[in-house]
Amino acid sequence: MQIGMVGLGRMGSNMVQRLLRKGHECVVYDSHPDALAKAKDQGAAAFASLPDFVQALARPRAIWLMVPAAVVDGVLDTLLPLLDKDDIVIDGGNSSYHDDIRRAGTLAKAGLHYMDVGTSGGVAGLERGYCLMIGGEASTYRHLEPIFAALAPGADAVPRTVGRPAQTSAESGYLHCGPHGAGHFVKMIHNGIEYGMMAAYAEGLNILHKGNIGQQGRAADAETTPLRHPEHFQYDFDLPEITELWRRGSVIGSWLLDLTAQALQGNPDLDDYTGHVSDSGEGRWALAAAIDQGVPTPVLSAALFSRFESRGNADYANRVLSAMRKQFGGHVEKTKGGSTG
Amino acid sequence: MQIGMVGLGRMGSNMVQRLLRKGHECVVYDSHPDALAKAKDQGAAAFASLPDFVQALARPRAIWLMVPAAVVDGVLDTLLPLLDKDDIVIDGGNSSYHDDIRRAGTLAKAGLHYMDVGTSGGVAGLERGYCLMIGGEASTYRHLEPIFAALAPGADAVPRTVGRPAQTSAESGYLHCGPHGAGHFVKMIHNGIEYGMMAAYAEGLNILHKGNIGQQGRAADAETTPLRHPEHFQYDFDLPEITELWRRGSVIGSWLLDLTAQALQGNPDLDDYTGHVSDSGEGRWALAAAIDQGVPTPVLSAALFSRFESRGNADYANRVLSAMRKQFGGHVEKTKGGSTG
Amino acid sequence: MQIGMVGLGRMGSNMVQRLLRKGHECVVYDSHPDALAKAKDQGAAAFASLPDFVQALARPRAIWLMVPAAVVDGVLDTLLPLLDKDDIVIDGGNSSYHDDIRRAGTLAKAGLHYMDVGTSGGVAGLERGYCLMIGGEASTYRHLEPIFAALAPGADAVPRTVGRPAQTSAESGYLHCGPHGAGHFVKMIHNGIEYGMMAAYAEGLNILHKGNIGQQGRAADAETTPLRHPEHFQYDFDLPEITELWRRGSVIGSWLLDLTAQALQGNPDLDDYTGHVSDSGEGRWALAAAIDQGVPTPVLSAALFSRFESRGNADYANRVLSAMRKQFGGHVEKTKGGSTG
Amino acid sequence: MQIGMVGLGRMGSNMVQRLLRKGHECVVYDSHPDALAKAKDQGAAAFASLPDFVQALARPRAIWLMVPAAVVDGVLDTLLPLLDKDDIVIDGGNSSYHDDIRRAGTLAKAGLHYMDVGTSGGVAGLERGYCLMIGGEASTYRHLEPIFAALAPGADAVPRTVGRPAQTSAESGYLHCGPHGAGHFVKMIHNGIEYGMMAAYAEGLNILHKGNIGQQGRAADAETTPLRHPEHFQYDFDLPEITELWRRGSVIGSWLLDLTAQALQGNPDLDDYTGHVSDSGEGRWALAAAIDQGVPTPVLSAALFSRFESRGNADYANRVLSAMRKQFGGHVEKTKGGSTG
Repeated sequence: MQIGMVGLGRMGSNMVQRLLRKGHECVVYDSHPDALAKAKDQGAAAFASLPDFVQALARPRAIWLMVPAAVVDGVLDTLLPLLDKDDIVIDGGNSSYHDDIRRAGTLAKAGLHYMDVGTSGGVAGLERGYCLMIGGEASTYRHLEPIFAALAPGADAVPRTVGRPAQTSAESGYLHCGPHGAGHFVKMIHNGIEYGMMAAYAEGLNILHKGNIGQQGRAADAETTPLRHPEHFQYDFDLPEITELWRRGSVIGSWLLDLTAQALQGNPDLDDYTGHVSDSGEGRWALAAAIDQGVPTPVLSAALFSRFESRGNADYANRVLSAMRKQFGGHVEKTKGGSTG
Repeated sequence: MQIGMVGLGRMGSNMVQRLLRKGHECVVYDSHPDALAKAKDQGAAAFASLPDFVQALARPRAIWLMVPAAVVDGVLDTLLPLLDKDDIVIDGGNSSYHDDIRRAGTLAKAGLHYMDVGTSGGVAGLERGYCLMIGGEASTYRHLEPIFAALAPGADAVPRTVGRPAQTSAESGYLHCGPHGAGHFVKMIHNGIEYGMMAAYAEGLNILHKGNIGQQGRAADAETTPLRHPEHFQYDFDLPEITELWRRGSVIGSWLLDLTAQALQGNPDLDDYTGHVSDSGEGRWALAAAIDQGVPTPVLSAALFSRFESRGNADYANRVLSAMRKQFGGHVEKTKGGSTG
Repeated sequence: MQIGMVGLGRMGSNMVQRLLRKGHECVVYDSHPDALAKAKDQGAAAFASLPDFVQALARPRAIWLMVPAAVVDGVLDTLLPLLDKDDIVIDGGNSSYHDDIRRAGTLAKAGLHYMDVGTSGGVAGLERGYCLMIGGEASTYRHLEPIFAALAPGADAVPRTVGRPAQTSAESGYLHCGPHGAGHFVKMIHNGIEYGMMAAYAEGLNILHKGNIGQQGRAADAETTPLRHPEHFQYDFDLPEITELWRRGSVIGSWLLDLTAQALQGNPDLDDYTGHVSDSGEGRWALAAAIDQGVPTPVLSAALFSRFESRGNADYANRVLSAMRKQFGGHVEKTKGGSTG
Repeated sequence: MQIGMVGLGRMGSNMVQRLLRKGHECVVYDSHPDALAKAKDQGAAAFASLPDFVQALARPRAIWLMVPAAVVDGVLDTLLPLLDKDDIVIDGGNSSYHDDIRRAGTLAKAGLHYMDVGTSGGVAGLERGYCLMIGGEASTYRHLEPIFAALAPGADAVPRTVGRPAQTSAESGYLHCGPHGAGHFVKMIHNGIEYGMMAAYAEGLNILHKGNIGQQGRAADAETTPLRHPEHFQYDFDLPEITELWRRGSVIGSWLLDLTAQALQGNPDLDDYTGHVSDSGEGRWALAAAIDQGVPTPVLSAALFSRFESRGNADYANRVLSAMRKQFGGHVEKTKGGSTG
């Protein structure tokens, strides 16, 4: 079936390519000529003008937005006047589900349909397929199901869960999760879990990475905690081998571990990264939802806060601590990166 | 080759069965007649007396202990007088690596060899194979390698990591991680990561489980936080379908997720569990190691503390909070399980 | 000067009493006859009808709301039609600053003035005075300053900070913190800090309370972590004496500690509390603000989550953990309150 | 009475001065001539040689060590051969209570007595007095009580707790907490609480410090979380005034807050600090004790981990996160300190 795609970044361009491969017709819009040219080569009808793009789509149009969450409302402002009754707009990016609820209301007043689709899979999605978490009206969902099925991994991606009854779309990798916002709500939780899992691996590997800390000297002053048992930290662990090991038979095997083992190949110290870790919003919104609900999420929040700290956002708080210590104890700060462990 | 196994619980009995299937000779000891009988049926030489068990083993003996960490030292006290120079004792359970270092020293004085093997895989290990994290002398490791290779999943369990050079034992699922204690150190970190991952899923699913909290009433008093936007929490999420969905194409696919999807089949509310979550020590020791090192582990610790809280261990702290609130604000406690969210 | 007070609960009635003592004229409204009668006895003009209350106030009226945050908007709906241009409404409760910004806009359209006042001090405020964090227009703030000064503790409550220049209102215990919402923003942070401090004491006391855990027996099975050094936990600490001790000369002296020492007198186990700890919203909003800002708040969030957990809100997450453990390890839950520590 | 003091750093020199003021006889040892000269000027008998120092003390000697925890064992090795039966050694520094238990056993074999004294008060202790948490034999405690009473703040330091029965030493600021190690155990918990309180203030102030984040621009790309409501973050908070305000009448008044208000005077941005926050061990040991006990301490651990992170100890973990994000999403790191909030 025909689909319009707005946004040919890392995600959008791969999704178009996957849809084309599966025999669907893609009409695409982007402001970057290179991205348009590439999509055109792959068989898409490519437009650098949004009105032209809209004109090229058959009614009722199905337009998939794959743009940063921060610009969705701006795109919608431009797009909506160009649309006609019964057209469908799908936000496949990382919007907050609050925005979905609001936008669905706005579009409904104009006779338009809105779907929110949380899309997981990253750059590997082109080959592996995308996990699609879908919110909106059931009738619109059914109308678009061929597109969802083409983007999703399909039923043979992993072994079936024992004891499941008749096969459902979830087993193909796409699911109608509920009304407007449900798709991005589930994606938001997905990403919150992702942050927690990533942090669990990262913290564990950090301990292993410092397994030989007992071999290093240490200042003996009142500002430095003594390492009571240096004999317990004499290990030079091989992290590329250990992460590879864990991929087989262990309880912590996962796709994220596969990727970590990959990343550590030939680069066990990861020196080419600065450790400035972005977050794209879903982890924050997951936490905000939990707070509204009164649900304790110590792990998800710790994972998020580690990212905030990696970007220097605790600096003022740390200076407050140093100022307090100076006041009550006359403590003078040691130089960052000192030997205090 | 021949191996002696002490302890035929969930783990030990399956490991014996796997070794027998792979053609190794198993001599086993346990105090439970049923476990012994089952092992005997499968082809093991089974003994209810530790001296008889030791006598039945060819020298140098290789004896694998698969018993609770709390009883290892007791078993060693009984076992050591029965052994001869060059015999090998393998602790395959969940001992602290501190104990490994100590025990290896004790055994070395008697001319004995000690290996610590972190064994992951659970009840599925019989079929999937066990992930083995091994510490001790290199020569003893090489001597025992046929046993390790038989227990491990083998090289074709998962696809190779792209770009790896020549195949290593890690790709078969077992690894000599370093000197005494290194195996249980790596296993300890493995379990710390496991706790973190499990908690990440559990917290995320808890948020989804309360996705319809906006449909419920709420007290309007000074002790209850108003739910500012009930319209944001009107979702009845289907957790068995959502966990099934995430198994395909998503970033958070993992074996733990496979098991979670399995557990939720036909039991989305998990009403047959009380939520009293044990911990077997490795998570604690991982955290203790991190503290010694000065490594921040907010996620691993939060996961561990959630388990402590699930067992009621925060009760006194909570009563302190209530007592403070009564003092400064005259606040009277609401009944547990009230509507405050 | 004259002030109208809506709400004669624990806070409102004491504030009226303090204002009356300081010579101000109080007109009060509440729906409970007893509260009205008590205020009348103390010298207030008391009304059971909101219109009568409004009529009794001289223009421009100054009306202080001291009601649960959840009912402020309802009260405003009733109140606003009764007011006249230039009247002032003060929300002295625990509203979200988001609501202040919205309400100030609504009132401004009707020519009315809105002030948000975070009020700390609890039941002791009657004698100690109230710490007032004030947001809104500077001119309205100045108009109401006699009321603020009467409610606040005054300059001699604590010793002056060394090196401060000319005295400011902060030194008397009230402060114009900024435009609309600034008062409740600062109060929100105040309460977030309060939660963190309370939890710090509670966790520390919990460790002391279990200082003799080494005297107790412990199961030796694979579900129970061995206590490696029972000799380290043989202390029977006297918490009433220790909290009393810390009040003098220590780094952790505080008013909260004074109250804790008070609460522990004659009741070291706090058996008359259940440990179901409410939260009234500010801690949640503080955390939500931090998340919006990208500010890491691991301590404030941990304190909040402990309260959520004290109310059983982690139960589903814990059942998920138990279900996972059953799946991979065949672990059967131990009974809650077991001896696993 | 006579006391020997080993170590004239910030703490030891002030304690000697306070004891001299109260009429006690002080014999002191230190390796720094300036510290010795200053103590001599104040009336102490000062020695640069440890044997001379020991000789100058009347038997049974009472020798107070006020040295970094890392060097206590070294000092004891030198000191013990110089002592005689019934002499007393007091460790007033920040030793682990594990070491106290061990050392008390060692000294007991030589007929010597050991006391562990947790000493709080910092540089202000000279005037305010020191809060003393004391562990060891009751008879030795009673022998030394005049020294403890002179160092402690005394009964009139704060108002009595209502309802307390007969006055105890805790009300004077010193307490015999239990057998060997009990003093440092209580001090360890004290410092754990201190870390938690400090972090609570620091996190809260950090949120206030970023109260105007809505006035700043923000990138609109997929790596940057949109600030959904910049209108909520338009506050320029005056932190010196707000901390001063909270000192009066609020729930969060404390000595640490007094010091914070002091530190912020004339320096609201604390630009002269780097935010490299040391920890001297007690916070770690408190957490280790909690882990052994199975006591959840999410706040105390979060406070400790923030210090570890302030020293760059999460760097490898953060690089692991960046490496994972690159693998699955093709995400390229933004420069540290970018505008992502």
